[in-house]
Formats: sequence, structure tokens, C-alpha cells
Amino acid sequence: MKLHRLILFASWLFVVSTGQAQTYIGDEREIQQILSEIRLFSEAVMASDYDNIANAYTTDGKIFPNNREIISGRDSIRAYWVLPEGVRTSYHHITPLEIKITGDEAYDYGYYEGTTLRADGTESHWRGKYVIIWRKVDEEWKIYLDIWNRISD
Amino acid sequence: MKLHRLILFASWLFVVSTGQAQTYIGDEREIQQILSEIRLFSEAVMASDYDNIANAYTTDGKIFPNNREIISGRDSIRAYWVLPEGVRTSYHHITPLEIKITGDEAYDYGYYEGTTLRADGTESHWRGKYVIIWRKVDEEWKIYLDIWNRISD
Repeated sequence: MKLHRLILFASWLFVVSTGQAQTYIGDEREIQQILSEIRLFSEAVMASDYDNIANAYTTDGKIFPNNREIISGRDSIRAYWVLPEGVRTSYHHITPLEIKITGDEAYDYGYYEGTTLRADGTESHWRGKYVIIWRKVDEEWKIYLDIWNRISD
Repeated sequence: MKLHRLILFASWLFVVSTGQAQTYIGDEREIQQILSEIRLFSEAVMASDYDNIANAYTTDGKIFPNNREIISGRDSIRAYWVLPEGVRTSYHHITPLEIKITGDEAYDYGYYEGTTLRADGTESHWRGKYVIIWRKVDEEWKIYLDIWNRISD
């Protein structure tokens, strides 16, 4: 049993360390699915596609924005992400430094950055860091916990 | 094999939901060890015991304070926690809302609050929310990732 589980574990394990010190631990296909979800999330943010932003979370997902209480559930999370009229996120990029799959959950941490473009044409650039807990629901990886804060320039 | 693993899983599972909507998922002894580490962390903060604060983290632990880069490793984490002369944290309390053990890691999220007492006798109270990734190292649960941000009053 022990040896059997060890072999099973070894066959699951997939570790990649790139030049940017990104470490991915877990089944390669699962890691690629999470990386794909990360890219789709940024695309949804840049498209102001609030439904797809909300659907990136589990139905009981939780976000932890600075200076706010914990916000729980897709409707409340969607409302949080909606920008004022005429404002959009013209650039959004997430750089995961480490993703580790631990069964039906995974943790993921790294950096994010983006640009806010306002109706008067002014822009502001910002960046920060995050920790996400992913959860596999019906064969899809969704965000269960999402917490972040800024890095000052 | 499948049934065997299912039984094994069921025997590991320990779910508690209290009146405060606290959910703990995992082996009871492991959960109690993490809860004990959480209490000891607050005690170390209130005692300005910076060595014990630093030792609560894995050697490669990471903290994510607001407006700062990610800080990695016990020495750097210890330096972050050191308060100015004459300042101390007279009260510190952590309320985990959910802890789930996922093998040798666990995620944990909830609220924290505390009081800063300055040399001139003035106090300020603050609270916030956090996500922690715990990791079991040599039979002890240590903090691997620690991210938080404030809740404004």
C-alpha cells in the first residue's frame, strides 16, 4: 500500500521551475488548467466581462479587498468588480510564482499588475501581490479564496 | 483500492461547525494543533517575543504586508514584526472562520484584531482579515504563506 501510494504520488507530481522562479507542483494537466483560468480571468477583467469574472469563483467564493469585510458569493463578488461608467482596466496581468495542487484544492501566490483608464483619458498603473485558493468543482478549477494587497511605487 | 481510500478518507475527516460559523475540516488532532499555533502566535505578538513569532513560520515562509513586496524567510519576517521602542501590541486575537487540512498543507481564513499601545499611553484598535497556508514540517504546523489586510472602521 505504501509503495503503491508513493508511485501514484510520483506519477502525479509535476514540478517546473522557470527562469522567473515559477514553481508548479502537481499534475501537469491540472496546472495547465489553472494557468489557463488565470489568463482568462485577466482577459475578463480587461473586457469588463463581469459575468465571466464572477463565474471564475466558486458559488461560495470569497474575496478579501483592502478596507472591506470579506465578500462572499458570486453576486456580491460581481458587484464588487463592476467599475464606474467610463472607467475600465485597459491592462491586467497575473504572474503566479508558485502553484501547488493539494487534491481538490490548490494554493497559488504571486504578483498582479494593471492599468486603470478613465473617461478623461488619464491612466493609473498599479501592482500588488495575492494568494488564491483554487477548488476543483465539476472538473473545473474555480477560485474559492482570493486575497490581495497593493505594492506602493 | 477505491473503497479502501474512501474509508481512510472518512476516518480522517473531522468537521465542526460552531455557532460562530467556524468550519474545521480534517483530522481532529491536526486541527487542534493548528488552533494551538494560532493562540501561541497571538501570545508571542502580545509578549513582543519576536523569536517565537519568526519560528511560527517555515524557514521559507512568506508574508504579504500591505504596500510592501513579498517578504521571505524567518530573518526578514522577524525584522518586519519588530515594533519601535516603547510600542507594543497589548491585545491580539485571531478568529479562524475555516481551516481545511489538505495533506501536509492546510488553508485557513478569518479575522484578526488587535490594539497597539504607544509609549505616550495612546492606543489604537485595528482589525482585518487574513488567509494563511499552513505546512506540516517535522510534525509541526508552520505558516508558509501569510497575507492579510485591514477592515476600515
